[in-house]
Amino acid sequence: MFEARFETGETLIKIVDAMKELVEDCNIDCSTTGMSMQAMDQSHVSLVALMLQKEFFGSFRCDRSISLGLNLLSFSKILKCASKEDAITLKAEDGGDVLTLMFESKDGSRVSEFEMKLMDIDSEHLGIPETEYKAVVTMPSGEFQRIVRDLGIIGDTVGIGCEKDGVRFSVTGDLGSGNVVLKQNTSADKPDLATLIELEEPVELSFALRYLSLFTKATGLSPQASLSMSPEVPLVVEYKIDDETASYLRYYLAPKVDEDEDAAE
Amino acid sequence: MFEARFETGETLIKIVDAMKELVEDCNIDCSTTGMSMQAMDQSHVSLVALMLQKEFFGSFRCDRSISLGLNLLSFSKILKCASKEDAITLKAEDGGDVLTLMFESKDGSRVSEFEMKLMDIDSEHLGIPETEYKAVVTMPSGEFQRIVRDLGIIGDTVGIGCEKDGVRFSVTGDLGSGNVVLKQNTSADKPDLATLIELEEPVELSFALRYLSLFTKATGLSPQASLSMSPEVPLVVEYKIDDETASYLRYYLAPKVDEDEDAAE
Amino acid sequence: MFEARFETGETLIKIVDAMKELVEDCNIDCSTTGMSMQAMDQSHVSLVALMLQKEFFGSFRCDRSISLGLNLLSFSKILKCASKEDAITLKAEDGGDVLTLMFESKDGSRVSEFEMKLMDIDSEHLGIPETEYKAVVTMPSGEFQRIVRDLGIIGDTVGIGCEKDGVRFSVTGDLGSGNVVLKQNTSADKPDLATLIELEEPVELSFALRYLSLFTKATGLSPQASLSMSPEVPLVVEYKIDDETASYLRYYLAPKVDEDEDAAE
Repeated sequence: MFEARFETGETLIKIVDAMKELVEDCNIDCSTTGMSMQAMDQSHVSLVALMLQKEFFGSFRCDRSISLGLNLLSFSKILKCASKEDAITLKAEDGGDVLTLMFESKDGSRVSEFEMKLMDIDSEHLGIPETEYKAVVTMPSGEFQRIVRDLGIIGDTVGIGCEKDGVRFSVTGDLGSGNVVLKQNTSADKPDLATLIELEEPVELSFALRYLSLFTKATGLSPQASLSMSPEVPLVVEYKIDDETASYLRYYLAPKVDEDEDAAE
Repeated sequence: MFEARFETGETLIKIVDAMKELVEDCNIDCSTTGMSMQAMDQSHVSLVALMLQKEFFGSFRCDRSISLGLNLLSFSKILKCASKEDAITLKAEDGGDVLTLMFESKDGSRVSEFEMKLMDIDSEHLGIPETEYKAVVTMPSGEFQRIVRDLGIIGDTVGIGCEKDGVRFSVTGDLGSGNVVLKQNTSADKPDLATLIELEEPVELSFALRYLSLFTKATGLSPQASLSMSPEVPLVVEYKIDDETASYLRYYLAPKVDEDEDAAE
Repeated sequence: MFEARFETGETLIKIVDAMKELVEDCNIDCSTTGMSMQAMDQSHVSLVALMLQKEFFGSFRCDRSISLGLNLLSFSKILKCASKEDAITLKAEDGGDVLTLMFESKDGSRVSEFEMKLMDIDSEHLGIPETEYKAVVTMPSGEFQRIVRDLGIIGDTVGIGCEKDGVRFSVTGDLGSGNVVLKQNTSADKPDLATLIELEEPVELSFALRYLSLFTKATGLSPQASLSMSPEVPLVVEYKIDDETASYLRYYLAPKVDEDEDAAE
């Protein structure tokens, strides 16, 4: 028996919305420690990893580890039948082929129950090596989304350059070229608006804006996003779902081996 | 001479918006008791009935009964030239072929006057038999709209089952199946949010969600909607426009003779 | 060297949005007195004229008069990378072929710099004769936008008739005919909502609603718009950008030589 309750169902809705344009079908792995998911996008360029610790849930029970094979688009459609304020409970019998979703309104006057068929999905779990990153930028997630959207008007590739006191996003395209510089900024009174740079050495890498734009669908999950970079290693964009329980949604994207990185400078 | 003044023109705009997707052309019947309208939708599956009592209007004068033949889409387009806050006056001469619409802004600084041609429309007035319904559910109109929209994501047909302490909306489709249960709930302090069930005997009927969805265009007219049901008799969905004068917009829809009602259970 | 700083960059964004659907490419003329622009729309029916006095800017420097040849659509796209609250600085070297745009967030934590190529654009400066207008109507710009939009639902051509105590906008179309009368109204406490009519003699002219609708893209620039009219002379629609420095955006449109002006009456 597996049963997990999201006290604020909105979080689950946001998580699925933040994955469904990258990943079509995936296995959500449930075990005694919590729920997790790992999947490559359909063109095998980026990777999404979700971790929800058991403590994150309002209540959590998982007698035996199971994998729930889900089509994310269908899952998302059924979740549209929940109100943002609803509590959402996911349930599955051991060995069953059905996932039950229960939505409860806050005052208990409306209770909805939906069943969706589970799928058998082949997937291999990729070991993501623990990496010490040379540069980690933590910034307002809305600011990151804005920069990715703005620069996407101008070009396809963004250069991200980390220095001690700031991070520079640069782009070149038919309209012209440009860059946005975000300075280190520890707004003590509004920590959500801070920009922090932890730097071992300066890093400059280029990435496809198309994928970064898909990652920013997770903006609503967290007021802050962090970008971890090292040369020749995939960028990690992390949205913390819950600080206290190390629950997160992470995206990995390999840097472009870029012929015209200088032009974007 | 016919002349009727809507102090808040927004009500007229909402009424027309709530009918124009179901009914193309219709006769609005004006008499000494008020304005009324009755029309089948274009596929002759559902029926719309409007009643606006004379007392509902800011002022009302109707020397001789007349029928105003209107194309609702044209009527709606001209109404778009009114502000929501405007008072709207409809005028027609006896035997004339023109309807005059006058829009007055609250402070009187803007006055608009439009004329539209009336049409000759054949229509027969259907006698709707007075029926004692076995079950009447009164619920927040927004909640009804939400359920109809949500279940429409999953399937085409909704089963509505009334029991003493709740009403169950159930649906089946390719994605899965589900149901929403709304419990009787007399929120004394917020009567608009109450769900009331008057039951003589339990009723379970199935309806096409497509039509229910068109009915919910009337949601803005009233905070509450009522569903009246009896076996083998059309469902009535009523939106009260004005409590004191028994003015309303009603929709009638025959139940589906349903082969798979059990599956939707 | 040319350098001009808009303290509220939003104004520049609104100006460009208000011109870009009428004018594709244009020269912005910079001199010691300020920035100005004049261009016919692509079908050579209407004319747009912009004047930004030097004093309007947060800082302004123009060593030698220069013309900046811009594609407004590209310019607008790059401006989309600025936040509304950003200060925007435009810079160009004498004899250079590049315009630099700098966007600075209020707290200085984000600085963006974009470069776009300038174009060589042939344009002749049209002398607009100083005219004494027989009628000048000053009205809320939002009200003007609303009337133009509403009447555009009904017909293509609007008759504008100015009398001592009001201005009448009339239209005829397939749906019917109508008119909107706006009365002189000196709302002393809310001057932005006033409608003022300065009249030497009554004027009645007809105009293409399509163009007026494009002019109303400037609505956000000013709470009031003024319409200046004389028989057989182009209408001027003016949006003041800054009262104190005589900075404005003006549109000129020749009246229709109208065969059915009476019908629109």
